[in-house]
Amino acid sequence: MSPPATAPPMIIDCHGHYTTAPRALEGWRAKQIEALDGKSPSPKPTELSISDDELRESLENAQLRLQRERGTDLTLFSPRAMAMSHHIGTQETSLAWSRLCNDLIHRVCTLYPRNFAPVCQLPQSPKVPPASCVPELERCVKELGFVGCNLNPDPSGGHWRDPPLTDRWWYPLYEKLVELDVPAMVHVSASCNPCFHAVGAHYINGDTTAFMQFLTSDLFRDFPTLKVIIPHGGGAVPYHWGRYRGLAQDMGRPPLEELLLKNVYFDTCVYHQPGIDLLLEVIPVENILFASEMVGAVRGVDPRTGHYYDDTKRYIDSAPGLTAEDRRKIYEGNARRVYPRLKLPA
Amino acid sequence: MSPPATAPPMIIDCHGHYTTAPRALEGWRAKQIEALDGKSPSPKPTELSISDDELRESLENAQLRLQRERGTDLTLFSPRAMAMSHHIGTQETSLAWSRLCNDLIHRVCTLYPRNFAPVCQLPQSPKVPPASCVPELERCVKELGFVGCNLNPDPSGGHWRDPPLTDRWWYPLYEKLVELDVPAMVHVSASCNPCFHAVGAHYINGDTTAFMQFLTSDLFRDFPTLKVIIPHGGGAVPYHWGRYRGLAQDMGRPPLEELLLKNVYFDTCVYHQPGIDLLLEVIPVENILFASEMVGAVRGVDPRTGHYYDDTKRYIDSAPGLTAEDRRKIYEGNARRVYPRLKLPA
Repeated sequence: MSPPATAPPMIIDCHGHYTTAPRALEGWRAKQIEALDGKSPSPKPTELSISDDELRESLENAQLRLQRERGTDLTLFSPRAMAMSHHIGTQETSLAWSRLCNDLIHRVCTLYPRNFAPVCQLPQSPKVPPASCVPELERCVKELGFVGCNLNPDPSGGHWRDPPLTDRWWYPLYEKLVELDVPAMVHVSASCNPCFHAVGAHYINGDTTAFMQFLTSDLFRDFPTLKVIIPHGGGAVPYHWGRYRGLAQDMGRPPLEELLLKNVYFDTCVYHQPGIDLLLEVIPVENILFASEMVGAVRGVDPRTGHYYDDTKRYIDSAPGLTAEDRRKIYEGNARRVYPRLKLPA
Repeated sequence: MSPPATAPPMIIDCHGHYTTAPRALEGWRAKQIEALDGKSPSPKPTELSISDDELRESLENAQLRLQRERGTDLTLFSPRAMAMSHHIGTQETSLAWSRLCNDLIHRVCTLYPRNFAPVCQLPQSPKVPPASCVPELERCVKELGFVGCNLNPDPSGGHWRDPPLTDRWWYPLYEKLVELDVPAMVHVSASCNPCFHAVGAHYINGDTTAFMQFLTSDLFRDFPTLKVIIPHGGGAVPYHWGRYRGLAQDMGRPPLEELLLKNVYFDTCVYHQPGIDLLLEVIPVENILFASEMVGAVRGVDPRTGHYYDDTKRYIDSAPGLTAEDRRKIYEGNARRVYPRLKLPA
């Protein structure tokens, strides 16, 4: 047995989006969308002008303040998920927008290398083979030091018109992820289907849907080292863990631990104590990555606790039955394993 | 204060489907689907011939045996949910199929009035106004004694092409439900979208989606006495109760208790103890209805417990912190309130 670790763990938040980017970014995007009718020129990347001071200002009183207040250290930081909106325009639209957003993330992480590590958006587009995302993924990882990516299982934005994540359609992208040793967080974007509220339904459904796709496929037999993170606490999955265990069993599939848990991880974006307690009770601690998604879906303070709903560190710290070693895994150790390109002090 | 009740509660399972119907029913449906190309005649209802003995046989070793083994009394019984498949054919297809299925449920409940109470399928069809379902709903309730209905929020079968449940599109149906004092269980059917596994993803997503539609609307201001049951433990909702409370708060909506919990109920189709414990912890006991969905989505025995995954009564019985009065509400009292047409011994 190794001696118990004494230094407190580093607190790595594996799920943060740049939701507070300067307004100029939105302005550029609005021009890009306006130009889709061909009547005005599409804006050039150089038309976006944001100074380093503006970047700092957008973060100092938001993510950086919250990191300090909550005692978290490093956020794996990606472009705003809602704004990915892969359903808008063409592959070229998506590529130009993704490059712009990823470059901004790179600048943020260069300004604050101790606070943020970069995760990229992929230039997906409905009905366009995901292989088309490989060059931007390689650019981000090899040239800019990105450590992960967000993978949208539904580029159509709530219409689910592309093949399931387990279809060979996606395999060229997985081959590159495996080669680069970069994990993917399965994360939908905005919903343009009026049935689905984005962060209240589409996000959670996307998580649940992806898990069930994985359960019914041999994806991880084909890619034994592929790693995926299902955010928002795994959607409905931990709450229905008995259902999923039973469905796998009825189908003659291996137990979920064997079938999926060498490859699938869940984050802790669950905004109340009972939800976190359930997650920690049913999912092995090795498969749980700390995350808060701040500043994100829910911004208020819970009147029952007096703390932010999304201050998930409080729930983990209060969860009964976790050992110090368990917390170390959730806060730091698992992230080191899942994001091997993350450069951290030893 | 009234004296504590002494007799054990009646155990009412509010969610059971006739998944074990004689094969002749499927055969009739196959002929109906085959006839959709217009090359063969659509089968007449009278072409379905199932004897009372065949009905008994289909139930004796299935639902009835399980009721006896598990100690449950009465199942609110509806046609097989997967087979509703409202996306197939036209409104006429759906009406003929719904009538046939509902008539069969009526026969079952007439044969076993102590074991089953009837809940109907609605003859929904994609893009057809839900008002078209009113005559079949009235027939079932007024002529055949049905006590509830299943309402499919996505008649397209996984494409979500109809308006959200909170759109005025659905109001004529709600007016009739209110007039008849009949609740609706929000229940999707099969998925013809390859992204969505039916019982593993589409069902759970349907539940989550419906809840979020309700949260963002004033449906229950317009229909203060409308009652809806969200099955499968409410999809992802109780697990993410903090998220939903926070989203409502951020939007300036009233607290969920006030906004939704006079109208929305959750069943207990959650197939492991931690899930049931969470449901009971976060949702008021007045809003929880016992259910198992047997014989349904998960049919196996959990090797960890030695009992059927869907033997949900065991989880309720084992749940810590419930009083006898709480259990009485979950097993019987709430169902009496939510299904006022249910005729039960006093």
